[in-house]
Amino acid sequence: MAESYKAVGKQSISFKNPPYIIAEASLVGKKEGEGPLGPLFDQIIEDPMFGKNTWEEAESELMKLTALKVLMKAGLKNTDIRYLIGGDLLGQLIATSFGIAELQIPLFGVYGACSTMGEAMSLGAILVEGGFADRVLAITSSHFAGAEKQFRFPLDYGNQRPYSASWTVTGSGAVIIASESTVKKETGKDIVITGVTSGKIVDYGIKDSMNMGAAMAPAAFETIKQNFEDFKLQPDYYDMIFTGDLGYVGKNILLELLKEKGYDITDRYTDCGIEIFDKDNQDTHAGGSGCGCSAVTFTAHIIRKLKEGKWKRVLFVPTGALLSQVSFNEGNTIPGIAHAVMVEAK
Amino acid sequence: MAESYKAVGKQSISFKNPPYIIAEASLVGKKEGEGPLGPLFDQIIEDPMFGKNTWEEAESELMKLTALKVLMKAGLKNTDIRYLIGGDLLGQLIATSFGIAELQIPLFGVYGACSTMGEAMSLGAILVEGGFADRVLAITSSHFAGAEKQFRFPLDYGNQRPYSASWTVTGSGAVIIASESTVKKETGKDIVITGVTSGKIVDYGIKDSMNMGAAMAPAAFETIKQNFEDFKLQPDYYDMIFTGDLGYVGKNILLELLKEKGYDITDRYTDCGIEIFDKDNQDTHAGGSGCGCSAVTFTAHIIRKLKEGKWKRVLFVPTGALLSQVSFNEGNTIPGIAHAVMVEAK
Repeated sequence: MAESYKAVGKQSISFKNPPYIIAEASLVGKKEGEGPLGPLFDQIIEDPMFGKNTWEEAESELMKLTALKVLMKAGLKNTDIRYLIGGDLLGQLIATSFGIAELQIPLFGVYGACSTMGEAMSLGAILVEGGFADRVLAITSSHFAGAEKQFRFPLDYGNQRPYSASWTVTGSGAVIIASESTVKKETGKDIVITGVTSGKIVDYGIKDSMNMGAAMAPAAFETIKQNFEDFKLQPDYYDMIFTGDLGYVGKNILLELLKEKGYDITDRYTDCGIEIFDKDNQDTHAGGSGCGCSAVTFTAHIIRKLKEGKWKRVLFVPTGALLSQVSFNEGNTIPGIAHAVMVEAK
Repeated sequence: MAESYKAVGKQSISFKNPPYIIAEASLVGKKEGEGPLGPLFDQIIEDPMFGKNTWEEAESELMKLTALKVLMKAGLKNTDIRYLIGGDLLGQLIATSFGIAELQIPLFGVYGACSTMGEAMSLGAILVEGGFADRVLAITSSHFAGAEKQFRFPLDYGNQRPYSASWTVTGSGAVIIASESTVKKETGKDIVITGVTSGKIVDYGIKDSMNMGAAMAPAAFETIKQNFEDFKLQPDYYDMIFTGDLGYVGKNILLELLKEKGYDITDRYTDCGIEIFDKDNQDTHAGGSGCGCSAVTFTAHIIRKLKEGKWKRVLFVPTGALLSQVSFNEGNTIPGIAHAVMVEAK
């Protein structure tokens, strides 16, 4: 009889046979290419329309190109992938549906706002480690113009943005999670997923959609704290802890909340939204955000450092703000969620 | 090393230790309560606002009440559930986020349009059978007024509907999937999930959002055919095959497509959207639809027949139309997807 023998603590999983991340890809827009991580991305595409006629089609094209890139880098065909787990920020996930349709891979559509890459990687690792799939492709995307239109105002309005507002990353990141390594031990390191801590919805009552870092920080706090507790770890178990897109405002809230519980992660913590843009020269205010923000930072930057041996263990915690334009306009709060993925080089 | 030893054929899974559906719940609105399945639902709520101020909050309340109902029927608390897998039709899944927030259960948000209950049950069974969770709550909802506002026109416009249009079900269905049975063998039957066939996106180029049955029928066809092929089955393996919400138009297309491949399921097939309303007396045109349609038909009707011994094996195939108001207005097609779940009484 099946039992939950892989469950750890209150909301975590420990993988007995940690699945391998055998390939990763990152495609971004022009602004992201001009940022500090610019040289690390697989491809920078200058045209924000990606050759298409609408922002939504542009994002679909971006996701498709990223899926094709990760397949190419892995030397695999679409038929080598058992499941695609993907999501984006657009209503009814249309960037994903239209982006990956022609790949013809069985699809699990997922939504966790900007935490979606954490959710997709968690479920991908579960499918592989549980013996249900040999290879899973996890992918997310976001597009600055599509997200502004979806959540705030169309760009044509030229509205101003407060300093607490984040800048949605135009980018798509993908990984292939597999049951078998493809690395020769002499020449490189395996990147594996050793565990996950899946988030609950956390709502501290924030209502300002121009300050989503503050809305998401409590969710990041709860998930990171739970990860420490479930695995009985101290922060120094990890070489680095990355949240998805808390930005400068959310970062400070998170550090304070953790300190109150006796966890000081200051010396090993940053946020993908902070890393991806140059605050002083790119006018991105609180930092980057979006499903693509954590996805491209993970695939271009974090995995690279793990492979280079700079870090051995990273806690990757994409963070999501579960609002919609409708819920915002109706005066609702912005609930947050965060999904943590434990990644290790070995 | 983990291998995909549970994978079957091209896109299916066979569960070695079939997870149990230990509880189910169905809550619906007034119109659904007046339909042929009316006496079977756990609760019929006359107020379409469910005591709230907006359609979105109404749907969230409906989902919350359904989650609480299924917990109550199972004799469980929220802390007894390891994961909640849920989704709805609203942009950014706000019915789910706001509905289940206070339950404080780790959440995987999923989106497959009206196929979402199939996706949620598939992932729930995977989490349980893979040893990652002892109990998972899978839930979806839809609301007629919220869906009309989201996808077509606000009700206040009083627009007319063609006969090919379906009627979004106001309802929410939930199941608890568990690793251990709670049934005494002498007194009742176990309901188990023996396998799943997960859908790819299928796009035959249909663009009419008032004829979603035609858009989804090819996806249902592909998934059902693949289920037969992957498990080397003929239709008579099942006592019944249910699609989610193809309605009268889509039903006929599906039957024709399967016949062309040599599979005649006519004598053991129906559609949840057809079963839930009385076509002649309820003015619902092509039939019911929505995430809630298949979910409440499964939880109120299908499971009951399985428990009563009327049927032994059912293939439950929720079907989704992956459009959004934006993709529709921009002239895109309506891609479909269908997720099949093999359910058995034993």
